[in-house]
Amino acid sequence: MNDRIREILSWYGSDNAGTRTNLARLLNHGRLAGTGRLVILPVDQGFEHGPARSFAPNPPSYHPHYHFGLAIEAGCNAYAAPLGFLEAGASQYAGAVPLILKLNNHDMLHEDKDPLPAVTGSVKEALRLGCVAVGFTIYPGSVHCGRMYEQLREIAEEAKNAGLAVVVWSYPRGSSLSKEGETAIDVVAYAAQIAAQLGAHVIKVKLPTAHLEQAAAKKVYEAEQVPIKTLSERVKHVVQSAFAGRRIVIFSGGPKGDDKTFFEEVRAIRDGNGFGSIIGRNSFQRPKADAIKFLQTVMGIYAGEIP
Amino acid sequence: MNDRIREILSWYGSDNAGTRTNLARLLNHGRLAGTGRLVILPVDQGFEHGPARSFAPNPPSYHPHYHFGLAIEAGCNAYAAPLGFLEAGASQYAGAVPLILKLNNHDMLHEDKDPLPAVTGSVKEALRLGCVAVGFTIYPGSVHCGRMYEQLREIAEEAKNAGLAVVVWSYPRGSSLSKEGETAIDVVAYAAQIAAQLGAHVIKVKLPTAHLEQAAAKKVYEAEQVPIKTLSERVKHVVQSAFAGRRIVIFSGGPKGDDKTFFEEVRAIRDGNGFGSIIGRNSFQRPKADAIKFLQTVMGIYAGEIP
Amino acid sequence: MNDRIREILSWYGSDNAGTRTNLARLLNHGRLAGTGRLVILPVDQGFEHGPARSFAPNPPSYHPHYHFGLAIEAGCNAYAAPLGFLEAGASQYAGAVPLILKLNNHDMLHEDKDPLPAVTGSVKEALRLGCVAVGFTIYPGSVHCGRMYEQLREIAEEAKNAGLAVVVWSYPRGSSLSKEGETAIDVVAYAAQIAAQLGAHVIKVKLPTAHLEQAAAKKVYEAEQVPIKTLSERVKHVVQSAFAGRRIVIFSGGPKGDDKTFFEEVRAIRDGNGFGSIIGRNSFQRPKADAIKFLQTVMGIYAGEIP
Amino acid sequence: MNDRIREILSWYGSDNAGTRTNLARLLNHGRLAGTGRLVILPVDQGFEHGPARSFAPNPPSYHPHYHFGLAIEAGCNAYAAPLGFLEAGASQYAGAVPLILKLNNHDMLHEDKDPLPAVTGSVKEALRLGCVAVGFTIYPGSVHCGRMYEQLREIAEEAKNAGLAVVVWSYPRGSSLSKEGETAIDVVAYAAQIAAQLGAHVIKVKLPTAHLEQAAAKKVYEAEQVPIKTLSERVKHVVQSAFAGRRIVIFSGGPKGDDKTFFEEVRAIRDGNGFGSIIGRNSFQRPKADAIKFLQTVMGIYAGEIP
Amino acid sequence: MNDRIREILSWYGSDNAGTRTNLARLLNHGRLAGTGRLVILPVDQGFEHGPARSFAPNPPSYHPHYHFGLAIEAGCNAYAAPLGFLEAGASQYAGAVPLILKLNNHDMLHEDKDPLPAVTGSVKEALRLGCVAVGFTIYPGSVHCGRMYEQLREIAEEAKNAGLAVVVWSYPRGSSLSKEGETAIDVVAYAAQIAAQLGAHVIKVKLPTAHLEQAAAKKVYEAEQVPIKTLSERVKHVVQSAFAGRRIVIFSGGPKGDDKTFFEEVRAIRDGNGFGSIIGRNSFQRPKADAIKFLQTVMGIYAGEIP
Repeated sequence: MNDRIREILSWYGSDNAGTRTNLARLLNHGRLAGTGRLVILPVDQGFEHGPARSFAPNPPSYHPHYHFGLAIEAGCNAYAAPLGFLEAGASQYAGAVPLILKLNNHDMLHEDKDPLPAVTGSVKEALRLGCVAVGFTIYPGSVHCGRMYEQLREIAEEAKNAGLAVVVWSYPRGSSLSKEGETAIDVVAYAAQIAAQLGAHVIKVKLPTAHLEQAAAKKVYEAEQVPIKTLSERVKHVVQSAFAGRRIVIFSGGPKGDDKTFFEEVRAIRDGNGFGSIIGRNSFQRPKADAIKFLQTVMGIYAGEIP
Repeated sequence: MNDRIREILSWYGSDNAGTRTNLARLLNHGRLAGTGRLVILPVDQGFEHGPARSFAPNPPSYHPHYHFGLAIEAGCNAYAAPLGFLEAGASQYAGAVPLILKLNNHDMLHEDKDPLPAVTGSVKEALRLGCVAVGFTIYPGSVHCGRMYEQLREIAEEAKNAGLAVVVWSYPRGSSLSKEGETAIDVVAYAAQIAAQLGAHVIKVKLPTAHLEQAAAKKVYEAEQVPIKTLSERVKHVVQSAFAGRRIVIFSGGPKGDDKTFFEEVRAIRDGNGFGSIIGRNSFQRPKADAIKFLQTVMGIYAGEIP
Repeated sequence: MNDRIREILSWYGSDNAGTRTNLARLLNHGRLAGTGRLVILPVDQGFEHGPARSFAPNPPSYHPHYHFGLAIEAGCNAYAAPLGFLEAGASQYAGAVPLILKLNNHDMLHEDKDPLPAVTGSVKEALRLGCVAVGFTIYPGSVHCGRMYEQLREIAEEAKNAGLAVVVWSYPRGSSLSKEGETAIDVVAYAAQIAAQLGAHVIKVKLPTAHLEQAAAKKVYEAEQVPIKTLSERVKHVVQSAFAGRRIVIFSGGPKGDDKTFFEEVRAIRDGNGFGSIIGRNSFQRPKADAIKFLQTVMGIYAGEIP
Repeated sequence: MNDRIREILSWYGSDNAGTRTNLARLLNHGRLAGTGRLVILPVDQGFEHGPARSFAPNPPSYHPHYHFGLAIEAGCNAYAAPLGFLEAGASQYAGAVPLILKLNNHDMLHEDKDPLPAVTGSVKEALRLGCVAVGFTIYPGSVHCGRMYEQLREIAEEAKNAGLAVVVWSYPRGSSLSKEGETAIDVVAYAAQIAAQLGAHVIKVKLPTAHLEQAAAKKVYEAEQVPIKTLSERVKHVVQSAFAGRRIVIFSGGPKGDDKTFFEEVRAIRDGNGFGSIIGRNSFQRPKADAIKFLQTVMGIYAGEIP
Repeated sequence: MNDRIREILSWYGSDNAGTRTNLARLLNHGRLAGTGRLVILPVDQGFEHGPARSFAPNPPSYHPHYHFGLAIEAGCNAYAAPLGFLEAGASQYAGAVPLILKLNNHDMLHEDKDPLPAVTGSVKEALRLGCVAVGFTIYPGSVHCGRMYEQLREIAEEAKNAGLAVVVWSYPRGSSLSKEGETAIDVVAYAAQIAAQLGAHVIKVKLPTAHLEQAAAKKVYEAEQVPIKTLSERVKHVVQSAFAGRRIVIFSGGPKGDDKTFFEEVRAIRDGNGFGSIIGRNSFQRPKADAIKFLQTVMGIYAGEIP
């Protein structure tokens, strides 16, 4: 329990010792234990995008144990997945890696401009499976956002009483937003703020572009000259937008792309005081040995061992 | 506990001792303690308008502790905010300033002519955080107003049983109202009446204009020659509309503007027997020292020390 | 407890002793105590029409205690109002006049051809405030009528278990009805029947005209030569439609008009075996002394002392 | 909120912001506000000893408002009493003095060598009455102690969830203890430890004598040469026994005696780092003016203004 | 997660992943992490024996943080204590050492030949404090044993649903047993069996002597020539009695004695396939540096590094 971890825990002064303990477990596990940085492996794409789109590029990844193994061998801080994937391995891998139960999910068999994921798990299930946290996705910008916020409110209250942490995926999406707007810096910063105000302990957002979506916000960014030119500056602004850096904000990797670009993005997150990455497809859609090497590089960058 | 406070508490004869105690705490704290006037600092704009629009003009205000500090140093009667902002400081600042947990919130990432805020907190959370009151926004005029009234009914009943006070933000808005109508004197007076009938202890409305929105009401205002020419007269009418002055009615400040105008408005509220102001952006969007000086002037006017 | 009251109570054979006790309190209070007739003061217009339209014609009526005082001094059987108005005086006036808590309300800041009032109070609140009954409005003819009936069902069940009486305002309205149809004799009689079938103890309807709205009904009224020519005949038919006179049916006064006409209507109600009147605006929109004199005349007619 | 109060609150790291807020209210009220010392007025003797034994020496004290007034005028930190006494004044004195609802009580109309008080209030009542804390008596040494501990466990868990503080009267008594043993230093220190282990925030014990009751303990006190000769040393030892001074320990006054002796005891409590006194009979069994003067002297000693 | 830990977890096939995760946390923490051996620091003596008897020999141990520090610095697998001691440090030390909340406790202020401890904590409190397990004491041989077994049944069921482990202190005691019989080999083996049958995951017993208490048992031990001559043999027999070694059985240290003897006993436990020790007074009743050296030796013996 070093000073950095103690400092991070001190930001959660209204949380009980149980929740703080589980945050500590998250921060003190794996290759980045004690650095205050995190790399989390999330595998909900089977549900969200379908199995072949998710696992066919690397068929061993159809197997639920594959992902436990990957998270453990690569030294990730945690593994996050929906109920089924965790149930399929939680007992065998008990205690080997912190688990996050994703409590809502959405599939692609019906199209929604304004998505409303189904609640597919519960706090009780998270306790039964030995998780350190529950995960929940909100889509600010969806016409259903109010319902998602209310579901999150109830779940978060119950989770906090039970000593669990709350991880919120905050992904702007919906008929009020342009495609470009979903990752606009003003919108991503807003999404981080909303998650923080809803009581999230850990907030996951997408990497923001320099685009400004909302006219009213645009005026302020320009008037106040908020620095958002480089990715690192934008990360800094998003982190600032989550209670001046007093909430853990991590960034998602998106679809598998070019590794060099990815590492550059990781450097920008690191230099912008982001807390880490949540890397799904880029991890499990390549052979395991490659994935581990890839993740080791990412962690090396966060740890400051790779410049 | 002076006579004025005792008089105000006497208006709440159906409330239990717990709710009266928390009303007393609200009225007996800060620079205006015991005067029967209130200045409250509300900071829900991060959620309602987005972080940059709210905090970029004064970057230290991104930090959740900033607002606790501002409310305490300026001697406000209370600090009101959504769950996340209160959680981020309630333990550190326990007992230093009365807190109001805002239980519903709405964001700008989707446009609604008829807004329906999400319920983002609970009475149990308010107890856990040591609040004196819960806050709830209704939008009379929205097609969803019925649902908001019903949510408020449930929350207010639970809050009153637990000895908390209920503060209602009553903001007419929706497809049935013109933009000008949202602050029309007949509409604002009506909004105050609705909040009072729904059982609010403290009612927050916008400052009304002399515009009359509803034809049926206009006839009566003209026939009965209700005096609504000056701002002070209009404040008096709104206060009258909230049970002949037997409910605490306070007025919101709106966007940051010219200080001189603002102080004139405060004088009008004071002279019209309004109970005070709830001042967000005008407070926290300027440097702290300025904000404190500004709030001291406002409080000085209410206290009758500044003419 | 005279024979007439005992007779009326005998109609409510399935109700528990608590509900009968509260019906007896209603029937045995005020100027008309023991006559089996009722005059009730309802003041929900502040919510339903707005404060100025309701109270500006007689400004003392902005004060919540005014209406308690009026009901008591005039000797009304009961005072009915929404939560806020009752909360503002129930403790001070405890035991001085039977109270009816109106559990749903609707405002004019948005227009609905098919209104659905919000539920703004609860049975628990009615017990807390010492009420003898809860009041509930249904709008037969509204597309939302089913939801209102279901809300009433739940509330009535809870109220009856708690020993309270149930007063139903049954006002046909909605896109399926012509304006004239809202007070058509077939429609008003139907509204009374629905309220009775839903389990109301006391039913409040508007005075019916001789208009027949529904084709299918019209045929029967004509074939069977149901007497509906005079107001007194129509009242008799409405009372008959509410279980052959074995439910208490009272009639609402409508907007303030000509007193002489009003008294004629009261005579028609009396002669048609109606049980009384519920008189709001005609009472509180004139100076108190006038109002008391006016109400005394009404009660004198019902008591048979004024022909 | 000065440093001493912040330090005391820091000892309660597992408590939520609500409980800390109420502890702060207790510590920041009255003449000793902010000193970290407390004087509490408890009036449960009417129940525990009977009315004449309690109130006949000063007949105005039969009136429940007398004690609210005395606590307020003398500047006590709080007033503690059973349900009835608090109900009889909590609304009138709302917000004027922190209240503690004593949740169990025992009377003298039956003799028990091993007392088991009845639970006479609840956490919900404490919220309804606006209390900052609940009070509970345990009698370690009674054959019924297990049942009392279990009652306290349930009450404390509920109180802490609702943001209230827990004050435990820990009075050794029962067939296993000699009369002298009830105030023996080993026994009183043990009683303080038990209350602390059961989760009390504030612990009330009797002033200990130098007697050692338990043979096994006596050996240790002698072997380790625990200093217990002076009252001040004994107070220090009791405070140490309550988590090395990290729980608030206050001392009860006992029956009315000689004032000079009493002030000497207060000095010993002060010098032994005791946190204050809870003074019932010595306060209310004398004329009010005398009582206030007496309490002012006690508070002056605690504040360090009287040597 | 090595093979030995996986093997141990495999014995708990009916437990959910949460409970297994918490058992893994217990087994994988501290100096003995991964060895399948445990040394636990228990500090309930303040409650069970009184503060001076427990802490006066080493006064810093009055402070609740002392024990967290000792457990962490010495590398114990866990720290077990009653509610108050855990509440006093769980937030500050969140995540630094696995915690066990002892849910029942008994004090010495009244004498019981047949003790029945009070339930002083709950599973919900254990979750709130971030514990890996709950602890519960049973006294087989007490006339109250049935009640304790039933309390344990309820607690264990709730704990297992919430993913916690259950540690049972099984201490034969009561009017049916001679003093010598409390540690007789037949009785201790029987106590281990009872705890295992009640569903304990971890069982704590005292070191057994070669005495045989029960006549009926004695016959069998002699007829079957159960080897119980050496301490190591007796440990082996007790472990065998707890499901042939498929439950974790640890041994308590008793009062502080001679270190050399103690280490011999630890060797006997190790060689008899006992899983470890729970060492209270021998740890905290000596200066911290000594205690750490002492515990390091114990752990060295268990780890097989010290012969």
